Amino acid sequence: MSETMVSLGQAVLDSQPFSVLLGARLTAFAPGQVELVVPLRAELLQQHGFVHGGVLSYAADNALTFAGGSALGKPVVTAGFTINYLKPAQGERLIARAAIVVAGKRQAVCRCDVFAATGPDEYLCAVAQGTIMMMGAGDADA
Amino acid sequence: MSETMVSLGQAVLDSQPFSVLLGARLTAFAPGQVELVVPLRAELLQQHGFVHGGVLSYAADNALTFAGGSALGKPVVTAGFTINYLKPAQGERLIARAAIVVAGKRQAVCRCDVFAATGPDEYLCAVAQGTIMMMGAGDADA
Amino acid sequence: MSETMVSLGQAVLDSQPFSVLLGARLTAFAPGQVELVVPLRAELLQQHGFVHGGVLSYAADNALTFAGGSALGKPVVTAGFTINYLKPAQGERLIARAAIVVAGKRQAVCRCDVFAATGPDEYLCAVAQGTIMMMGAGDADA
Amino acid sequence: MSETMVSLGQAVLDSQPFSVLLGARLTAFAPGQVELVVPLRAELLQQHGFVHGGVLSYAADNALTFAGGSALGKPVVTAGFTINYLKPAQGERLIARAAIVVAGKRQAVCRCDVFAATGPDEYLCAVAQGTIMMMGAGDADA
Repeated sequence: MSETMVSLGQAVLDSQPFSVLLGARLTAFAPGQVELVVPLRAELLQQHGFVHGGVLSYAADNALTFAGGSALGKPVVTAGFTINYLKPAQGERLIARAAIVVAGKRQAVCRCDVFAATGPDEYLCAVAQGTIMMMGAGDADA
Repeated sequence: MSETMVSLGQAVLDSQPFSVLLGARLTAFAPGQVELVVPLRAELLQQHGFVHGGVLSYAADNALTFAGGSALGKPVVTAGFTINYLKPAQGERLIARAAIVVAGKRQAVCRCDVFAATGPDEYLCAVAQGTIMMMGAGDADA
Repeated sequence: MSETMVSLGQAVLDSQPFSVLLGARLTAFAPGQVELVVPLRAELLQQHGFVHGGVLSYAADNALTFAGGSALGKPVVTAGFTINYLKPAQGERLIARAAIVVAGKRQAVCRCDVFAATGPDEYLCAVAQGTIMMMGAGDADA
Repeated sequence: MSETMVSLGQAVLDSQPFSVLLGARLTAFAPGQVELVVPLRAELLQQHGFVHGGVLSYAADNALTFAGGSALGKPVVTAGFTINYLKPAQGERLIARAAIVVAGKRQAVCRCDVFAATGPDEYLCAVAQGTIMMMGAGDADA
């Protein structure tokens, strides 16, 4: 079942051109939990050779959205999130692991840890917290 | 002088492979203020045809960093930021305008507004607030 | 009309025991905008003689809620907010000024500046950004 | 040793007039971890009979600061934090549990969970994430 969820989730990811540009893959997906991997390559770095903060924030944003969406079971959007960068990220891949803290009918609050990994070694490089909403629920559109 | 700052800032932007991948350009840069533009193209969208949240968070993150860096006058890093998505973004380009709220010796708190624009029309689609630090100052490295 | 809004708002504030404990007063209230004042006294300080961060976060939280509520026109709750402390706060009173950035049908994103003031002089000591929701809309309750 | 830390931490808490006003107590304190309790009473509520958001944000702010301070080992200040309110809080007491995620030389990023409790029963009502800094390190003062 979780494998089916991974396939379904990966299909959603593949339908996001920006996620395709970044090469993101869903490596685990279960109700309320997700693991998203971004293989690192030169194009994703900043001027000091570390992963650009924008890539970390992309990974956190998307992992939070998938975690929240898995529980709300409907099309969702990220209402917003906070990210703290902890250490410069470098290695073979980024791993963003997000989980729901509390899910309601129309909204879920989730947390995400972003790791940089090389082979079996990984270290935490950013932490995030965000709010996911069902599309149309509580939207800020006029 | 401001033109020189734009050139210098653009050179820094051009040294960030991820900013080159996204095609970001610095259109204004003065002490404590910056305007960064990301021309929109299909690769930057999500599955509903809107700009991916990760692109908005990239633009906010980078604009915050440049705004903070312009005042601290030294290599800086973004310690963290919060972003709230207000409306789905679509159009010809994203415009991220960031300004310093307060700058100290080693840290600056900045705000950023992200607009989606088509021709002369633009609308606000996200707001962010973040903290920029001098590299090595107050870092969270063990 | 704005005076009527101030009276109505002050009545709501007076119905919050914690706001009464802190002595908060509404000094301006118009659609999408609010000014809340907390007279400073020894009980609101921390160990270094500055205003306790919890008082600043109370003021920001409540001002954000009133600003958002004025536009949504229904009972609201604060979904969450981010606050950055800029300078130690001391003086005769805290002034929290909040305004809506964007309001939708069920949610509003607001920003707040918190000042410390003595007589006519004031300085910015914290900035906040938060999300206000109609009660029951998008709530995170199971 | 942890008992000594609790005594020392409680002494700091007792030196904060605002914490005394709120009746906060330190119930656990170890390197990188803290538990702070606020006994609930009528004065800490809002107009619907729930705990005022300002009390939750106070508890989160202070617990984050103590957690960070325990690792940095020097006088610290909270640079800023984000809080998401999950459920209306009511009961006999609030319990804020904070822990360090990563601590560096001058800064620590911490997370905090805030629970409402009655007797042995408790439920999560807010989650927070914040940054604690050594006083003077990276401060935003001009």
